[in-house]
Amino acid sequence: MSEQVIPYKIYLSEDELPKSWYNVRADMPIKPAPLLNPKTFEPMTAEELGEVFCEELVAQELDNDNREIPIPQEILDFYKMYRPSPVVRAYCLEKKLETPAKIYYKFEGNNTSGSHKLNSAIAQAYYAKKQGLRGVTTETGAGQWGTALSMACAYLDLECNVYMVKCSYEQKPFRREVMRTYGANVTPSPSATTEIGRKILEEHPGTSGSLGCAISEAVEVATKTDGYRYVLGSVLNQVLLHQSIIGLEAKAALDKYNVVPDIIIGCAGGGSNLGGLISPFMGQMLRGEQDYKFIAVEPASCPSLTRGKYAYDYCDTGMVTPLAKMCTLGSGFIPSANHAGGLRYHGMNSVLSELYHEGLMEARSVEQTSVFEAAEMFARVEGILPAPESSHAIRVAIDEALKCKETGEEKTILFGLTGTGYFDLYAYEKFNNGEMQDYIPTDEELKPGLDSLDAIPVNKK
Amino acid sequence: MSEQVIPYKIYLSEDELPKSWYNVRADMPIKPAPLLNPKTFEPMTAEELGEVFCEELVAQELDNDNREIPIPQEILDFYKMYRPSPVVRAYCLEKKLETPAKIYYKFEGNNTSGSHKLNSAIAQAYYAKKQGLRGVTTETGAGQWGTALSMACAYLDLECNVYMVKCSYEQKPFRREVMRTYGANVTPSPSATTEIGRKILEEHPGTSGSLGCAISEAVEVATKTDGYRYVLGSVLNQVLLHQSIIGLEAKAALDKYNVVPDIIIGCAGGGSNLGGLISPFMGQMLRGEQDYKFIAVEPASCPSLTRGKYAYDYCDTGMVTPLAKMCTLGSGFIPSANHAGGLRYHGMNSVLSELYHEGLMEARSVEQTSVFEAAEMFARVEGILPAPESSHAIRVAIDEALKCKETGEEKTILFGLTGTGYFDLYAYEKFNNGEMQDYIPTDEELKPGLDSLDAIPVNKK
Repeated sequence: MSEQVIPYKIYLSEDELPKSWYNVRADMPIKPAPLLNPKTFEPMTAEELGEVFCEELVAQELDNDNREIPIPQEILDFYKMYRPSPVVRAYCLEKKLETPAKIYYKFEGNNTSGSHKLNSAIAQAYYAKKQGLRGVTTETGAGQWGTALSMACAYLDLECNVYMVKCSYEQKPFRREVMRTYGANVTPSPSATTEIGRKILEEHPGTSGSLGCAISEAVEVATKTDGYRYVLGSVLNQVLLHQSIIGLEAKAALDKYNVVPDIIIGCAGGGSNLGGLISPFMGQMLRGEQDYKFIAVEPASCPSLTRGKYAYDYCDTGMVTPLAKMCTLGSGFIPSANHAGGLRYHGMNSVLSELYHEGLMEARSVEQTSVFEAAEMFARVEGILPAPESSHAIRVAIDEALKCKETGEEKTILFGLTGTGYFDLYAYEKFNNGEMQDYIPTDEELKPGLDSLDAIPVNKK
Repeated sequence: MSEQVIPYKIYLSEDELPKSWYNVRADMPIKPAPLLNPKTFEPMTAEELGEVFCEELVAQELDNDNREIPIPQEILDFYKMYRPSPVVRAYCLEKKLETPAKIYYKFEGNNTSGSHKLNSAIAQAYYAKKQGLRGVTTETGAGQWGTALSMACAYLDLECNVYMVKCSYEQKPFRREVMRTYGANVTPSPSATTEIGRKILEEHPGTSGSLGCAISEAVEVATKTDGYRYVLGSVLNQVLLHQSIIGLEAKAALDKYNVVPDIIIGCAGGGSNLGGLISPFMGQMLRGEQDYKFIAVEPASCPSLTRGKYAYDYCDTGMVTPLAKMCTLGSGFIPSANHAGGLRYHGMNSVLSELYHEGLMEARSVEQTSVFEAAEMFARVEGILPAPESSHAIRVAIDEALKCKETGEEKTILFGLTGTGYFDLYAYEKFNNGEMQDYIPTDEELKPGLDSLDAIPVNKK
């Protein structure tokens, strides 16, 4: 049989686009642990969650049973504006590496938010609108999620209040302006607009903020403002569900050419991209249909999977959100100031944490200079300037391809290229000037965060 | 016959990609005027041009006869990395405007250079490499062209020296860093590295530079450095030739659905995108096969078509380049300091100038606040943050669609969306803050530039 020529880019046609999201929880023999009420430590009910989140999103958050969740037509229409995203065969990278490996990447950066975040933003905004809400609040770090949500809210004519981690707000004024162009109200966090913000500012007057702290502020405003709810770009199971569109499209594209990946690699912060990419493949593995090797890649300076504990933890600094069981460094953890590469969240989504805990997925931590080296090589040969986050996956994809070069194995590698680095040029500048440094926290530095978990009553059982 | 449903985005498959560029000059009954030697005012010979440009590019520059120029395989392979670019049906914009018009745009921003410039950059770099050169020099204003050339040179392992207009160098450090990430050497212009640069700095110590001045520097370095030639991202006929890939793909995509545009709109600075987009359609019109209305859109603050003279002029400030016959404001023209929207070049490509002179194309000038209003509306409904340059075309596309709303006509509009605005957020910030102002130069202000043309001997005939 003559081998079929694989094009540089595989695009699905509009009628080949997935019509449902895939819920990997339905195929998990051991379900992810439930969210707990931070006051009672009992599982959160739909009613309790409904005070913070939209009703349909609560239903999705709690749904461990339905394998397929139909995507509403309005969301499908929005998806058509920037999807399908291509699966790209990295011919030029393979040539550069002189590897027998076959490398593919699913590119999610071809939209103005610059990343995959839009996939869940439009879903969350849609359900908020459907519920008759006036607006939503959220937090954003580097700004990808905030931009995505601003775009979705502009499209649906919904108010959008974004709490942006102060250091990003100051270092990334352009991200702020994109959000403003889309009509969002952007506030640097911590701010004086919330109780928790004022408290944090009093205790740490010079703080440059953190994701956990911005979450606390956004949740406070959502619960205190009529017609508002809170939305979140990662960590939650509903987000993984929406992001399954990445894996579903990737699988459909590869299936067209009978390509089966041996290794699937994704960068991991809160888990939204990784979970979305691997879900349908993991489902096959859980059902015993196919074997894959999954690799989660995280920064050495924020190693929630490789050095965290699998325990219940707060999702925010202010400890106002429900507790999630996850691989975590403790809700007070903040990566060192010289960390440039995103993926800064202290914990990992519960589904992924459970899968990792069961040994169904590997994890690697990588240092940032090696990440930017991979980013630069990739940019030069593949023509796309990758986001630092995405470049974590590139790093490990290159490492795996180089292993194949040594062994002569023709493995097929698929990785998620979550976004573009147009708003990360400060970090690239540092790297170009040779001023970027690596930092691996010592065990002593991680200890207080990990110890804080033991103090949470439900972890004592 | 039931009407065929047009998808949001029409992608050609790789085997449908054009294999040749289209040279509209072959179909022009009156050919564009030749380039003249700035010393003798005689037509430039291939030999003379060869001192500045690569040999094959000189041949393309002088070729008024061959309708189709095959695209070398190496360039086709590079094109596959980011092409085909989609033709998008602007369903959401149509709905927002409540217009019966059908609006399509050809989107060229889905690559790291952020614009269509890459189409010509890879061609020019390829021919330089093929000639055995060591490197190329060029100028860049906003930075799109410099970024594109850096990418092409990195891919082909060619040195790349970019003279970047000083005000852009300072206002757009991120553009500079993208170029550096791709290995380019970037110098703010005017600089002390060239004779002409030192001269300009002496005469105008505080100058923030201009494209014309950066061209002079890049040409000087190219002609004085062994193994170097100069390349240019617009204005030249060879660039229009390479950019015809835009129009060819757009036409092929529309043909698949039997769509024939009534109006074709492009923004116009030096003419590279406009010429590339309209060429194949203009060819049909010149051959008497089909009628179209073509509209070139330029900034009111740099109105080379609508208020310039059709005359011979220098392409640069230092008057070291050949003269081109074009619609021009005079080679000393610099747009007012508050102009934010790109398209700052003083003249227009010779082919387009001739077509405009013959009445085969219309031109409109638009003011920048109305351009950014259009940009913002477009971003919110279509999800793409457009470059200010591209937004000139959006403005007129919206204007034409609104005319259809008044008259009830169901016209089909095609416009070129040349790129994204991720590096133009300073301008968006100004607009978001209500600080952007319009500026239309008075006749008195334009007079010195236009009068300078009368002093050029060859214009006196």
